[in-house]
Amino acid sequence: MSQPVFVLIRPQMGENIGAAARAMWNFGLDRMRIVDPRDGWPNQRAVAMASGAGRLLDEAGLFDGTADALGDRTHVFATTARARGLTKPVVTPERAMEMTAEMIGRGEKVAVMFGPERAGLENDDIARANTLINVPVNPDFASLNLAQCVLLCAYEWRRQTGDAQAERVELAGTEWASNIEMEKLAEHYESRLDEAGFFFPEHKAEGMKLNLRNLWSRMPLTRADVQMLHGVLRQMVRWKERGD
Amino acid sequence: MSQPVFVLIRPQMGENIGAAARAMWNFGLDRMRIVDPRDGWPNQRAVAMASGAGRLLDEAGLFDGTADALGDRTHVFATTARARGLTKPVVTPERAMEMTAEMIGRGEKVAVMFGPERAGLENDDIARANTLINVPVNPDFASLNLAQCVLLCAYEWRRQTGDAQAERVELAGTEWASNIEMEKLAEHYESRLDEAGFFFPEHKAEGMKLNLRNLWSRMPLTRADVQMLHGVLRQMVRWKERGD
Repeated sequence: MSQPVFVLIRPQMGENIGAAARAMWNFGLDRMRIVDPRDGWPNQRAVAMASGAGRLLDEAGLFDGTADALGDRTHVFATTARARGLTKPVVTPERAMEMTAEMIGRGEKVAVMFGPERAGLENDDIARANTLINVPVNPDFASLNLAQCVLLCAYEWRRQTGDAQAERVELAGTEWASNIEMEKLAEHYESRLDEAGFFFPEHKAEGMKLNLRNLWSRMPLTRADVQMLHGVLRQMVRWKERGD
Repeated sequence: MSQPVFVLIRPQMGENIGAAARAMWNFGLDRMRIVDPRDGWPNQRAVAMASGAGRLLDEAGLFDGTADALGDRTHVFATTARARGLTKPVVTPERAMEMTAEMIGRGEKVAVMFGPERAGLENDDIARANTLINVPVNPDFASLNLAQCVLLCAYEWRRQTGDAQAERVELAGTEWASNIEMEKLAEHYESRLDEAGFFFPEHKAEGMKLNLRNLWSRMPLTRADVQMLHGVLRQMVRWKERGD
């Protein structure tokens, strides 16, 4: 699938460019453009920070101005931390990446702009954007840095387009116990505990048995768990029989 | 609303503890617990990095062991980057924070554990968790650091519980143009362009007028935009009348 390009406008610290590359590649994005980086290009600090994501820097497009960097794009997002006095749609990162996936699906070319560390994007850059992205941070403390903002947008891209299952169970070399296995486990415990005199007094025995069966059935047990619980009980019996 | 506690297990670098505090507070979370930090506690590097979020460090609970730190919790999540060979439910950060909001809503006390920078949580810690959180990163490049993992979980907490509108328009001191204002704009342009001989040849005039009206109606214009477009046209007429 095509992907959006992330455009860093006048980034200052090489470390932050490298960290942005890592953040992108963590979520499978590898198309970066850079406009007028303060310390020139290439930048050794960026390379050192990017480590495993250095390819993004090698392949990054370098541009003199924002207009050039956006020239081939049909929809441009700009990330901003505050209102700018320009009438413009404002969306969450979630909605932005949902829109991006839809637009790319119908052949559009999308850019997401990120401003320089200290001051963010200038209004001249903002005016070039179709839509603003505003991360819904704590209004009392909004201190996202460049790479964190890139990270959240890249994360949302993958969340909108990836195939991550919201919920699964890691089964460590086993599978869920079947009903018959659970039944046999319940019987094993019930009969041994009966022998051991656990179901006492007698008028409560039926209720206790029911509760014990219910306990087993509430447990999401694997075959390995069931084997372990059989083993626990057998060992208690062996211990008792050894009489030590 | 109550919130989950984020528990840093044996964190190594003070800077990362400070960055984790900032990441939490960016999304309105301020209950941190710390288990056995490598460089002792308090940690000046953590304080320096936390800056505006230093209160979280002052108020953080310090514990000798994981069991103590989790003692009062009813549900524990553990963040992991890789499979651990322990049978356990695994969820995305999104699902984890949705579950957390539900559980807190019914009075449960939730913790989210984060492991040390280098190796992540040990299996002894993982075994104490009810549920694992796995960030769906690029399988070819999974290099999230501690503060980034905290950031994504905190972001998802706010996304699940906050009131951020997915989409809104920042209206800079104006409001949307009404239908009658759009109508008058269309008429103004149509009549002046008629005078100017724009709708030519005559057999195409009706179609051109329709297309022009349709163009206006596709534009999401504010009252300020409409005034500007009236002004543009008036100025062109004045310029023509000056005859220079």
